[in-house]
Amino acid sequence: MVIKNAFYAQSGGVTAVINASAAGVLETARMHADKIGKVYAGRNGIIGALTEDLIDTSAESADAIRALRHTPSGAFGSCRYKLKSLEDNKREYERLIEVFKAHDIGYFFYNGGGDSADTCLKVSQLSDTLGYPLQAIHVPKTVDNDLPVTDCCPGFGSVAKYIAVSTLEASFDVASMSKTSTKVFVLEVMGRHAGWIAAAGGLASSEDRPIPIVILFPEITFDKQKFLAKVDQYVKEHGYCSVVVSEGVKDADGKFLADQGLRDAFGHAQLGGVAPVVANIIKDGLGLKYHWAVADYLQRAARHIASKTDVEQAYAMGKAAVEYAIAGHNSVMPTIERTSNTPYAWKTGMAKLADVANVEKMMPADFISADGFGITSKCREYLSPLIEGEDYPPYKNGLPDYVRLKNVAVSKKLRDFNI
Amino acid sequence: MVIKNAFYAQSGGVTAVINASAAGVLETARMHADKIGKVYAGRNGIIGALTEDLIDTSAESADAIRALRHTPSGAFGSCRYKLKSLEDNKREYERLIEVFKAHDIGYFFYNGGGDSADTCLKVSQLSDTLGYPLQAIHVPKTVDNDLPVTDCCPGFGSVAKYIAVSTLEASFDVASMSKTSTKVFVLEVMGRHAGWIAAAGGLASSEDRPIPIVILFPEITFDKQKFLAKVDQYVKEHGYCSVVVSEGVKDADGKFLADQGLRDAFGHAQLGGVAPVVANIIKDGLGLKYHWAVADYLQRAARHIASKTDVEQAYAMGKAAVEYAIAGHNSVMPTIERTSNTPYAWKTGMAKLADVANVEKMMPADFISADGFGITSKCREYLSPLIEGEDYPPYKNGLPDYVRLKNVAVSKKLRDFNI
Repeated sequence: MVIKNAFYAQSGGVTAVINASAAGVLETARMHADKIGKVYAGRNGIIGALTEDLIDTSAESADAIRALRHTPSGAFGSCRYKLKSLEDNKREYERLIEVFKAHDIGYFFYNGGGDSADTCLKVSQLSDTLGYPLQAIHVPKTVDNDLPVTDCCPGFGSVAKYIAVSTLEASFDVASMSKTSTKVFVLEVMGRHAGWIAAAGGLASSEDRPIPIVILFPEITFDKQKFLAKVDQYVKEHGYCSVVVSEGVKDADGKFLADQGLRDAFGHAQLGGVAPVVANIIKDGLGLKYHWAVADYLQRAARHIASKTDVEQAYAMGKAAVEYAIAGHNSVMPTIERTSNTPYAWKTGMAKLADVANVEKMMPADFISADGFGITSKCREYLSPLIEGEDYPPYKNGLPDYVRLKNVAVSKKLRDFNI
Repeated sequence: MVIKNAFYAQSGGVTAVINASAAGVLETARMHADKIGKVYAGRNGIIGALTEDLIDTSAESADAIRALRHTPSGAFGSCRYKLKSLEDNKREYERLIEVFKAHDIGYFFYNGGGDSADTCLKVSQLSDTLGYPLQAIHVPKTVDNDLPVTDCCPGFGSVAKYIAVSTLEASFDVASMSKTSTKVFVLEVMGRHAGWIAAAGGLASSEDRPIPIVILFPEITFDKQKFLAKVDQYVKEHGYCSVVVSEGVKDADGKFLADQGLRDAFGHAQLGGVAPVVANIIKDGLGLKYHWAVADYLQRAARHIASKTDVEQAYAMGKAAVEYAIAGHNSVMPTIERTSNTPYAWKTGMAKLADVANVEKMMPADFISADGFGITSKCREYLSPLIEGEDYPPYKNGLPDYVRLKNVAVSKKLRDFNI
């Protein structure tokens, strides 16, 4: 078999475990030196391919690659850059082929979410459309958990665990303070379109340790009176209440709740989050003392409390991508197939990229409770295994010993290219 | 020796390790059954004593008490309630004595920060002023790290670790995104008067893994132009930058930066945090894309990533408090005495409450770098040992197995008391 080099890139918002997928790709490729030569990583995603800014991963030690498994963020840099269609942008596709040819690249591994799957699909068609032999495999990654076919998406389980743990801990805190001080705690979480992450906050409450939690899903139109009534009821019953609000919650006019047209004292528009908006609604409507937090990047970067299930799945997706490539596949994505709930079991499957690209998986309606403020037992059954297990990074001087790679550049062979 | 019962209460803002101090008090008291009878906990702090709302901790199993060591928040409820002076409020002190007498309480353990130390001091004087024999010992606790005499305060080390870990993780994240997207990440942390917690963000950067971090201390007046120049410089040098901002940062007029007089579209005043204010300053001044987070309760409740040093010290303070009481002391507080930096070593000391109450320990000026945006090596030397070590809680179903006590009420013997 002819030995070809491979290209690997990270795309879109990074996660606590996207580097675990990178470790899966790189370690598996190294085990198949008879088929895959060097793995070149794109510096800052697909931009690295377009600008011939390639990183020679063979310069990294086995220890460094292994350490990627416990290092959050994108070790090679990521980007937000979506290729247009071949018709609209032939220049970029031709450039990709030029770079791939110059560096003898026959495998294309793209690690990202929905938009990236679309890019990967387009690249996978290059062998047909532009006559360049290339196998393109998508490695799934997104905290939004919105890729179709796969049971879940690497990156989501760790965010879900972070949000569930944080909601549990903050709820214990506000419960302690509620007699004379704070009665409501509001936590803003990611998820502009789907409420998967917000739903994870519901896991903090369980039968043997019930916690009053109100979840505000982007799928449910915000109803101020109903919301205030629910908070009021919980505070009367329990003395306190936690609110987990998705950044994507909208009001009846379809406007983001976060977008309140805030102005500072000089009349300048100010951008705020949705958490302070919800907190102010509680203050005005119920006169209760509150605290609020916005998790933002902390939630998706929190490798220190990553889900072991998630880490293992992220690694497995990277490994399977290489194995699928070696087996001759093109235009596919490894998937996670749930085979059992109790005990939880899963295996690696395969999806055609054509079935993945541009399809968004929303939360099933029966995952949200009838009143719109909680999760159903069906949702709990789905989510619980995904946060199962801890996979602690090693520590040095009190901090996680995350690796920073050398990221040695491959010598350029081509003229510059402007993107 | 006569056996007397003890009273224990938690006061002020709770922490990740105040229950570890409770475990230290309760386990040590149980080992001295010849001197201490039952330990009654105040439900919601001193309010529990005033209203005779006592919890019989003898109803809790040894396992439950042991689990307090790994459970954040205040297991018996806390309160924000400061006793006035004896002259201004004799009624409350007389009520305390009435309750202590009715329940044969001879020991008073009060677990809190500066305000609580003052309350404890006043209670410790009851034996003299009102002729009731009582030994009052203060158990130090505050994330603000502002108690005098003691080298550090239980609760602070774990917040410091959380902030250092979170800053590290989010910095890795923004570094990955900076090529095409977010270039500045802003994290708001606690600390209205002193910059101890903000300083901990600086630990994320080290010699072998430098990270561009701008710290905004409450001790340093905010200078917009100087701040923007620093962020601009870092972004030009590194491509990205993290900002750790204390909630207590003030402008040249002495006004909190968070207090921007925000109004919504209807002209209603809105309360925001300082993080979005700083983010907007960066957007307006430099045109850079940013993300911001507000850690709020998450930072002080994060028992899942508590500092082992902090947990051990919190427990030791509870244990020492009981031992000091048994040894006949009154009106004192156990302290942490640092005996060596490399390797870090500490022992338990003792402070007079009169030297602790109403004294606030600020950050030394030589802990802040000359430009006002970073920490010095002296600060690093002080902080580093405090975040050393991990002390993970046990997990169940993917979540920390935090204990919720039974909190059985002691039968009331007295008439009601209105506070």
